[in-house]
Amino acid sequence: MKKIEILDSTLRDGAQGEGVSFSISDKLRIADALDKFGVDYIEAGNPFSNPKDADFFERAARCRFTHAKLVSFGSTVRKDTLPGEDEGLRALLAAGTEYVAIFGKAWDLHVDCILGTTLEENLKMIRESIAYLCSNGRKVFFDAEHFFDGYKSDPDYAVEVIKTAERAGAAAVVLCDTNGGCFPGEISKIVKEARKALRVHTGIHCHNDTGCAVANTLAAVKNGACHIQGTLIGLGERCGNAALSTVIPDLQLKLGYDIITDKQLASLSRTALFISEVTNSRVPASMPYVGKAAFAHKGGMHVDGVAKDPETYEHIDPAAVGNRRSFLVSEVSGRSSVLPRLQQIDSTLTKSSEETKAVTDRLKELERQGFQFEAAAASFELMVLKELGKFKPHFEIDHYRIISSMDDIDGNIYTEKANALVKVRVGDRSEITADEGEGPVNALDKALRKALEVFYPELKKMHLIDFKVRVIASNDSTAAITRVLIESTDGEKTWTTVGASRDIINASVLALTDSLEYMLKDKQ
Amino acid sequence: MKKIEILDSTLRDGAQGEGVSFSISDKLRIADALDKFGVDYIEAGNPFSNPKDADFFERAARCRFTHAKLVSFGSTVRKDTLPGEDEGLRALLAAGTEYVAIFGKAWDLHVDCILGTTLEENLKMIRESIAYLCSNGRKVFFDAEHFFDGYKSDPDYAVEVIKTAERAGAAAVVLCDTNGGCFPGEISKIVKEARKALRVHTGIHCHNDTGCAVANTLAAVKNGACHIQGTLIGLGERCGNAALSTVIPDLQLKLGYDIITDKQLASLSRTALFISEVTNSRVPASMPYVGKAAFAHKGGMHVDGVAKDPETYEHIDPAAVGNRRSFLVSEVSGRSSVLPRLQQIDSTLTKSSEETKAVTDRLKELERQGFQFEAAAASFELMVLKELGKFKPHFEIDHYRIISSMDDIDGNIYTEKANALVKVRVGDRSEITADEGEGPVNALDKALRKALEVFYPELKKMHLIDFKVRVIASNDSTAAITRVLIESTDGEKTWTTVGASRDIINASVLALTDSLEYMLKDKQ
Repeated sequence: MKKIEILDSTLRDGAQGEGVSFSISDKLRIADALDKFGVDYIEAGNPFSNPKDADFFERAARCRFTHAKLVSFGSTVRKDTLPGEDEGLRALLAAGTEYVAIFGKAWDLHVDCILGTTLEENLKMIRESIAYLCSNGRKVFFDAEHFFDGYKSDPDYAVEVIKTAERAGAAAVVLCDTNGGCFPGEISKIVKEARKALRVHTGIHCHNDTGCAVANTLAAVKNGACHIQGTLIGLGERCGNAALSTVIPDLQLKLGYDIITDKQLASLSRTALFISEVTNSRVPASMPYVGKAAFAHKGGMHVDGVAKDPETYEHIDPAAVGNRRSFLVSEVSGRSSVLPRLQQIDSTLTKSSEETKAVTDRLKELERQGFQFEAAAASFELMVLKELGKFKPHFEIDHYRIISSMDDIDGNIYTEKANALVKVRVGDRSEITADEGEGPVNALDKALRKALEVFYPELKKMHLIDFKVRVIASNDSTAAITRVLIESTDGEKTWTTVGASRDIINASVLALTDSLEYMLKDKQ
Repeated sequence: MKKIEILDSTLRDGAQGEGVSFSISDKLRIADALDKFGVDYIEAGNPFSNPKDADFFERAARCRFTHAKLVSFGSTVRKDTLPGEDEGLRALLAAGTEYVAIFGKAWDLHVDCILGTTLEENLKMIRESIAYLCSNGRKVFFDAEHFFDGYKSDPDYAVEVIKTAERAGAAAVVLCDTNGGCFPGEISKIVKEARKALRVHTGIHCHNDTGCAVANTLAAVKNGACHIQGTLIGLGERCGNAALSTVIPDLQLKLGYDIITDKQLASLSRTALFISEVTNSRVPASMPYVGKAAFAHKGGMHVDGVAKDPETYEHIDPAAVGNRRSFLVSEVSGRSSVLPRLQQIDSTLTKSSEETKAVTDRLKELERQGFQFEAAAASFELMVLKELGKFKPHFEIDHYRIISSMDDIDGNIYTEKANALVKVRVGDRSEITADEGEGPVNALDKALRKALEVFYPELKKMHLIDFKVRVIASNDSTAAITRVLIESTDGEKTWTTVGASRDIINASVLALTDSLEYMLKDKQ
């Protein structure tokens, strides 16, 4: 089996995604997670253009990675500059990593329009930069920026660029679809041509602007690329990079490549979630393999089919990537679609059990009130436990008061923070406290946690990561039913709870209460 | 140029996505938007399995579409049942659409394991179902469910299934990758084989479980498919369907196909946003073509490059799909996109008017705060009038206080109605009053109207018809920014206003105030 190398660029190209910004400690945590997951190379930043990245490499030099190698990233020498006097190359050496990646121009348009130099001078810049880094003991990955657009514009020149890099000593030549505008057919054809010109390892780096980053990466591998660049959850400039969380299981589970161990692959969903947490981004529910809904079945036929044989509606076993099958309960659902979820909680239940009927009836009643459990498996589980008489609450809210106010004094608007007071009971003890927040729900959330942490310090580990509000049956305007979905995490797993009420505050309290109870549910 | 037909299944397969649930009025609005956008067919629901869908088709029969045809969806006849006695087929006929789509089994595993019948009997079910629908004057799309998995398992049988459908009179045979487990190479090869067996139009229906739904769809088109099924923003079972918002511009802008008009294509981003708003889902920022970040440049080299020549880092012109370039480091003006809307209010304004710059700057500032005027034309108009110095407020809120509370007395939960007190000023006069309501926003809305109707009795004619809440930038959980959209009517016309704030009550007050001011705007 041919070896495929994986380079994750979450910390470099991923940082160029909209809304992504890393602290040094974020970067260290992500690098550690990627190392454990099993990637070969972690491209971790540009020490020249970003001083924070230079600090990172200094800190990271003291870290021990079990397998992965850190890679610092930069560009070829500036024109009319000697490599030894180029600040960019010097910053790369100062980063102290054994591996460095530099990008150079492979598209004549860029050489002319961006660098403002000649085609010949560009080749010289590439040659001298790589040779200089190699002579300083570095292993060099050469990223041929815009290789595919360059090939389409002037194939001979694009090929000359990568041959120059190989001759200068590059350890791998990476073909980049920098603008993400290519399709698999083009990638196949051009990678095949490039392979004819190269003996060194060939890499692929795709962006997703045509929605084909994954397919393009696979097409390159099929045609001889053995070094894959991407980002685990697809973060990156514009539409992002090829998502390694899709590419790796595609190759390993379905196309016969052997990249990481089965155990590492089974940590994929958890690693993806962890990275999304640290980057404050989200793994979309529908993301292949790792999304919360990637193995969620809703259509009645699908639910029935999977109950009979999972292969009928699942292309792989979700456990292989550390994900889980789930059954979405929708408004048209009867006992047969509720049952599989019920059996995950109590495997002895059957379609004709009294409990199955009770849960189905309760579900319908709650759905009529505006609840929706499809995206709120944690609330569903608690509801079932209540119906089965297996639920014991860990706290009760005795009362709350929330005050929101605004004053206009001489034309200046003063919106005070909302104030919430709450009293909770846990067994015979009670706790009353208050807090303030941005809006009534935030104030109440803070006060409630503050009171409960007295009894359950472990709640400090938990926090909310998403809060969704939906107004339903809205023909009655502001008095319509409001449904609130809350997603919470303890840093390892996430769960979603739901509340519905005509009053948004009540709806939020119901969802918050479920969220806290779910965190505590295994505690006696 | 070969004609490519587009079938959008947002209202059917999209409704099987996690967290998606449509009201009948949602469905009518989405169908209208898809028709204007230019799709050929709108697969709108399953009238047999979902009674709400049956109601939808009844309502939709009275709607006029400019181009699109509605399609009702169902399955082949149940085994051992005569077509005329099958409730599913009867429900399809009752839906009254000229076009119907039915799915049938093309994978021997499913025939055996799910249907529990023989291969021969399955062919008979397909044949009789299609013939029955045709004899009742319907045009039938036959969805060959699991065609690719079926072909891999038993190619002769899979091909016999689609030939049977063609012989029975299907208007198109749609090859479905129902489990979404295929890759472009397989799709190419199998579509090519299928095309050899068929004369009728061949369709393609892909799911995204390997991250290849778009590439698979393109591969099928390249090999002769001319009917594409997908959902505009990729909603659908598990990992979703092929996103038509990616497939259509890929084909039309880059691969030489002509599917919709340039003007329709330029409404793509707006249509995608509209559908995500109605479904309360999100268009991911990184989504190809239509995402907010699809043409957002952050890396320094990229920003510089695009300033010199957009082609250096953009594969297409964002205007072609109605999106906008943005620079995440240094913002530049979006005057040309604001101007057309500005000129609707003051036709003398030009791109270089000072007012145009002022409005554009203000708009950017408000968008940064979480406002979004796409769906809130009334608030946009008021904002412009304010910037042009043409706005005179009809009232001011001096202050408000809102109290929300809950008590648990001996295990009984007492949620009191929220109470709101508000004082308004109109010129030299003021009015203070209070009211109660379902939740804080409803209470404040009622109190505010009660106070204002003293001065403006015409407000009695006005009422709210929709109230939507959306949480954005939700990485800070309950303290995230909340955007409220309010739709109001005076019985003759309707208008929508927007408010955004970290506090849902403030956001609601901003939208309510705009709504009332808009009603009063022509009053001196």
